[in-house]
Amino acid sequence: MKIGRVTGTVVSTRKLESLEGIKLLLVQPLDDNMENNGNPIVACDTVQAGSGDLVIYEGGREAALALDNWYNPADSAVIGIIDQLDQVKR
Amino acid sequence: MKIGRVTGTVVSTRKLESLEGIKLLLVQPLDDNMENNGNPIVACDTVQAGSGDLVIYEGGREAALALDNWYNPADSAVIGIIDQLDQVKR
Amino acid sequence: MKIGRVTGTVVSTRKLESLEGIKLLLVQPLDDNMENNGNPIVACDTVQAGSGDLVIYEGGREAALALDNWYNPADSAVIGIIDQLDQVKR
Amino acid sequence: MKIGRVTGTVVSTRKLESLEGIKLLLVQPLDDNMENNGNPIVACDTVQAGSGDLVIYEGGREAALALDNWYNPADSAVIGIIDQLDQVKR
Amino acid sequence: MKIGRVTGTVVSTRKLESLEGIKLLLVQPLDDNMENNGNPIVACDTVQAGSGDLVIYEGGREAALALDNWYNPADSAVIGIIDQLDQVKR
Repeated sequence: MKIGRVTGTVVSTRKLESLEGIKLLLVQPLDDNMENNGNPIVACDTVQAGSGDLVIYEGGREAALALDNWYNPADSAVIGIIDQLDQVKR
Repeated sequence: MKIGRVTGTVVSTRKLESLEGIKLLLVQPLDDNMENNGNPIVACDTVQAGSGDLVIYEGGREAALALDNWYNPADSAVIGIIDQLDQVKR
Repeated sequence: MKIGRVTGTVVSTRKLESLEGIKLLLVQPLDDNMENNGNPIVACDTVQAGSGDLVIYEGGREAALALDNWYNPADSAVIGIIDQLDQVKR
Repeated sequence: MKIGRVTGTVVSTRKLESLEGIKLLLVQPLDDNMENNGNPIVACDTVQAGSGDLVIYEGGREAALALDNWYNPADSAVIGIIDQLDQVKR
Repeated sequence: MKIGRVTGTVVSTRKLESLEGIKLLLVQPLDDNMENNGNPIVACDTVQAGSGDLVIYEGGREAALALDNWYNPADSAVIGIIDQLDQVKR
């Protein structure tokens, strides 16, 4: 899983049927200083995350296992909201 | 899933049989400023997207689940056209 | 698999049920000089690793095979603590 | 799938049995200007591509679905030769 | 699959049971000039490769198919030693 910050939402009317009713979040990947790094991703919300939340997300086939329909072609999901990050810097 | 812009189409005569009849789009990955970033990909169209459209696409085994033949070796698909992007910039 | 250093832990209260009871480690990917390189990841601990440990981790669907529940949507796991690294530099 | 150019062939005598008899191509990933970008990959040929050909290739578990033996551990395959690329530049 | 050079071995005592008895190689990814590029990976050896060997390796779920236990969570394997590389440079 990776660490990201929810930066918004994505609205799509013409989309795969299996994505109907799933909230799509815009998530920005973060580096070890929690700065933006890399292209944003579009992830299915499973934990009712909102803009500004620091979250755990994942990408790949396993993301669908976080949804009700395991054969959903979705490949990214926010699976946790981070309360606390204990990080030892070197 | 990721955000990209459709920049064209790809025509291939000599290809895997399972790709016959599937429209192949050239999609450019975008960064958080919606600028080009990274190598373009070739994705199967499932939502009748066209050149210039801002789209949600995905890459990996799960892309085939968006097609009629789940055992298609295809590994990228455009699965939604973006109508609106609400993005909080920091 | 890849080489990383455990740099901390991640606490998340609101998360997928299947992640309950699994210790989440913050792992920093390393380059061939064992310097930080790339965004940190959040990995499930399977070997009781701690902060500072040099570890083998992996990302992807196969990570769940390292957990008790193979259908866990988790996609990263620390699967070994490195005792010794014999590296020929060029 | 991605766009690449076949730049050569790879010969390996000591290899996995399941790779016997499969032609291995060296493929260079290309950016949106069709310039080399990224490390070259080694892909199984399924369309009789040759050096210099512009091709569609893919990497990941799904590549094996393009081969006769689906349980082949191969994870990259050239699956189409590109005849024409209609690209709108911005 | 990708091209790499074996640069050493990794010893881990505390690790997943399914990795017992498997030789772990340190492999450095290479670019099209066969120069080091990217973070090193830790791969299971299936062809008795040694330090200095130019090899074909792969990463992902399919790597386990190269091992005796297909449900091994291992996700990288060296699957061939390269004898000859015919590369057309542009």
